[in-house]
Amino acid sequence: MVKWFSGKSVRIEVPRLRSRSNVLPTEKVALAEFAPDVMGFLGRAAYVQLKIFETLSRVITNAPTTAAKTAIGKAAELSLGKHRALVAEITKAGGSPADVMDPFTDAFDEFERISRGTDWYESLITAYLSAGFFDDFYAKLAEGLPTESRTRLVTIFAGESGEQVLAEYLQAAIDANPRLDSRLAMWGRRLVGDMMLAARSALVFPDHTRTTEAQVEPVFGELIAAHTRRMDALGLTA
Amino acid sequence: MVKWFSGKSVRIEVPRLRSRSNVLPTEKVALAEFAPDVMGFLGRAAYVQLKIFETLSRVITNAPTTAAKTAIGKAAELSLGKHRALVAEITKAGGSPADVMDPFTDAFDEFERISRGTDWYESLITAYLSAGFFDDFYAKLAEGLPTESRTRLVTIFAGESGEQVLAEYLQAAIDANPRLDSRLAMWGRRLVGDMMLAARSALVFPDHTRTTEAQVEPVFGELIAAHTRRMDALGLTA
Repeated sequence: MVKWFSGKSVRIEVPRLRSRSNVLPTEKVALAEFAPDVMGFLGRAAYVQLKIFETLSRVITNAPTTAAKTAIGKAAELSLGKHRALVAEITKAGGSPADVMDPFTDAFDEFERISRGTDWYESLITAYLSAGFFDDFYAKLAEGLPTESRTRLVTIFAGESGEQVLAEYLQAAIDANPRLDSRLAMWGRRLVGDMMLAARSALVFPDHTRTTEAQVEPVFGELIAAHTRRMDALGLTA
Repeated sequence: MVKWFSGKSVRIEVPRLRSRSNVLPTEKVALAEFAPDVMGFLGRAAYVQLKIFETLSRVITNAPTTAAKTAIGKAAELSLGKHRALVAEITKAGGSPADVMDPFTDAFDEFERISRGTDWYESLITAYLSAGFFDDFYAKLAEGLPTESRTRLVTIFAGESGEQVLAEYLQAAIDANPRLDSRLAMWGRRLVGDMMLAARSALVFPDHTRTTEAQVEPVFGELIAAHTRRMDALGLTA
């Protein structure tokens, strides 16, 4: 398992903001400050795992070898397991899973559609980058939820992921095809923007009308750094 | 969980055949008599679970509701779990999983291709009927394997399946659309032939050149009966 963040027990170094209304553009801010309500969190997070599963299952169906199908199957199983755990949290919180997820399906269906890519390698790097990005995103965001569910939720996203095996298949493909790296680097750069847009819709800002891009951008600082490390791991320029 | 057979502890009532060479057309025979070697068994059984997973994942991707995606996700997870358990058995028996599965991929890729159906409902009934059929088939066939692995293997196939949830979505679709039943009945009748053909290739007959259709047919008696019960459960004529 690859862990880009240092684990759930580590505290964020930046001081908690004094109040949500005085976020300054120059201040380092934590995603947790902008957490939505629990159901808004769970609905999005559970549905995203379904879409990551759909991406992975297409990768499995189109895989060039039986070995790749079996190996990537483990990643798909882990996504389904996270989805199921989040659905159980919705039920535990008194919600009906489909009703809680449905308000967010359009945005993530659209993300899944535009992130499909034109061949197996683009789908594979989408699965690798987006599974990691959204696990990181929801793990960080969960830190802003009420204590009661926070620990369980952070644990779900910190759980085993298929990232390592996806990286191995990407690395093998890049090694075997010298022209693949520049194409995948371009794809990864495009994808990070789409992922931030899809993630951003979950954030609740103190004063929505006065929120500027400059205030939103720093929230994604750690996520972008983790994305860059995922690209670096494959020798790709982020 | 729906159990069409009465469970792994029940003995088959027919006497064991005296020897593999004197199978008579009129004799009731057990699938276990025709089991291939362990690796031939595991390679096929593991790959079939991958194909069932691929069928289920297409059903999930194309599902008309979020509730259906979540519910059928459980069935996909169970198939992947069975695949993983069978791959572990290959490793335990000293084999390389992909090498052991690869000789059998063409036949099952072809089965998966022709069993896709033209819409969501045909894919859904394919998943329902084929997951059940192949679990039954390999559970029965495993009884003819050496004692050492037999019990573990029979347990894998007797494990929880997504059959119940698939039947519920099919039933709801049939209830909502009066013309769907005759189309799905026809599809199920066609499918049983394709499943028997795909399954049959695993069987080892005592004297291959003298094996007649009349000898093969009875082997599938219980499986066809179980298939008919699955169709009956939806009010469809098998």
